[in-house]
Amino acid sequence: MEFKLVLKEKANYIEQLLNKYMPTEEGYQKTIMEAMNYSLSAGGKRLRPILTLEACKIVGGNENDAIPFAVAIEMIHTYSLIHDDLPALDNDDLRRGRKTNHIVYGEDMAILAGDALLNYAFEIMLSNSLGKENPEKYLKAINEIAKSSGIYGMIGGQVVDVQSENQQIPKEKLDYIHNNKTAAIMIGCMRAGAIIGNANEEELDKITKYANNIGLSFQIVDDILDIVGDESKLGKKVGSDIENNKSTYPSLLGLEKSKEIARTLINEAKENINELSEHVDFLNGLADYIIDREY
Amino acid sequence: MEFKLVLKEKANYIEQLLNKYMPTEEGYQKTIMEAMNYSLSAGGKRLRPILTLEACKIVGGNENDAIPFAVAIEMIHTYSLIHDDLPALDNDDLRRGRKTNHIVYGEDMAILAGDALLNYAFEIMLSNSLGKENPEKYLKAINEIAKSSGIYGMIGGQVVDVQSENQQIPKEKLDYIHNNKTAAIMIGCMRAGAIIGNANEEELDKITKYANNIGLSFQIVDDILDIVGDESKLGKKVGSDIENNKSTYPSLLGLEKSKEIARTLINEAKENINELSEHVDFLNGLADYIIDREY
Repeated sequence: MEFKLVLKEKANYIEQLLNKYMPTEEGYQKTIMEAMNYSLSAGGKRLRPILTLEACKIVGGNENDAIPFAVAIEMIHTYSLIHDDLPALDNDDLRRGRKTNHIVYGEDMAILAGDALLNYAFEIMLSNSLGKENPEKYLKAINEIAKSSGIYGMIGGQVVDVQSENQQIPKEKLDYIHNNKTAAIMIGCMRAGAIIGNANEEELDKITKYANNIGLSFQIVDDILDIVGDESKLGKKVGSDIENNKSTYPSLLGLEKSKEIARTLINEAKENINELSEHVDFLNGLADYIIDREY
Repeated sequence: MEFKLVLKEKANYIEQLLNKYMPTEEGYQKTIMEAMNYSLSAGGKRLRPILTLEACKIVGGNENDAIPFAVAIEMIHTYSLIHDDLPALDNDDLRRGRKTNHIVYGEDMAILAGDALLNYAFEIMLSNSLGKENPEKYLKAINEIAKSSGIYGMIGGQVVDVQSENQQIPKEKLDYIHNNKTAAIMIGCMRAGAIIGNANEEELDKITKYANNIGLSFQIVDDILDIVGDESKLGKKVGSDIENNKSTYPSLLGLEKSKEIARTLINEAKENINELSEHVDFLNGLADYIIDREY
């Protein structure tokens, strides 16, 4: 089957899981559940939860055990988008062709819905980890998610990104943003899945390298597509980085060098993952997909 | 020693613990740590963390084991205040005589600092629970905190409170707000501490009743003080509930009936806690303090 179809099938499966784990819209506080579920069901590639289940499976685990972690990571990703879209941050009215959360529910509810999704992610991971064999393993997996989404991960990256708007920054700082804003969560969600699948240290190490490389490469390709991408295929405006005087891989290193770095990262990612297991067709496909998305 | 002095001493101890667990202000993302620490060190009675340690101790546990949970609960409380103060919510410029977070760091950083504190609370609880005996116990304790601070606890209460502004609501709905906005976290922080102290189900039950009753009573007394309180002693404006046409215990049931209910709740709280242990002087004192704060 063509890789894009496999990806779509996996995304559909994640949609089903999200529907199952979403809070029921009832009680006095019903509005907050509606606001949470509105953004949770707004679509997207669902890459992070797919990676969680895949990491669990390739180390020989039962991917069903990792489901609460996959769902939780998508809730964390979704909360970060809701808060990112707020007027005080990116001030976006639209995301994936739909009105953003604060446009529909108001800024107050959007702030609280984001908070609620972050909190609910931990509620789901914790409540589904009680009474299991090897509880230490579950603590470790939740810890990976928590680390990767906080000030030493995703939030750290967001903060520096916000502070670097409309100014040129050195490559080291740009790497900090890319690594933390995107790659950290990729690492966290894959490590969590792998830990639930009883991965050993060597396996975790290879998975971490894969996740880090596809995460960083994903951001570099985003930078490249903002210059050479086709708006109709991407479904979003291109050229905004240059317009905003934003430092990017192409602006700092040139287009060809950026493509070369992205390709090298993807090759390394695939090497690492292929050393780990024979059942990595999907992860190989995903690595290629990330770099071949458009150009 | 006078109860107020004991309380102050315990609050000072919590300050020390917070200082120890606060993130170090370094790295590209330094601003977010500064914003987190600014609000964390803004003072307050530190009731919630004090209750966590006390609950651990009265069931025979070592209160040091509960420290990460005490610190985490204060971080969660602090994040909720930062987000509550935002222009889209209560739009407050001052809290405890200091400028609110968004006035100092901007709305964008205040939103992210709140997110970061909620996330960091889980990071602290999780990372400090790894490698301990009986990991299941730690999962249970973190789960209590998570439940009590989400949409079936604190956030639920906040949402309904926000939606009930400038309108009369029935007592049932007011109880929902009081129970969830305040009592839920009291319950969560005490249950977490007690679980770490190896409490059995009966002990947990009594502690839950104590926490619930002092939490609800605390809110009723707040309602009462907004009518009869002395601004200079309270350190805040009174009369705002009537001004805002807010439903409160006194507005729905009258002043005397409200005082009676608060007193009954406190008496029940004390009965429950006295059945549990002989070493509950502090918790008895706290219960009385809550109701005798002012009038």
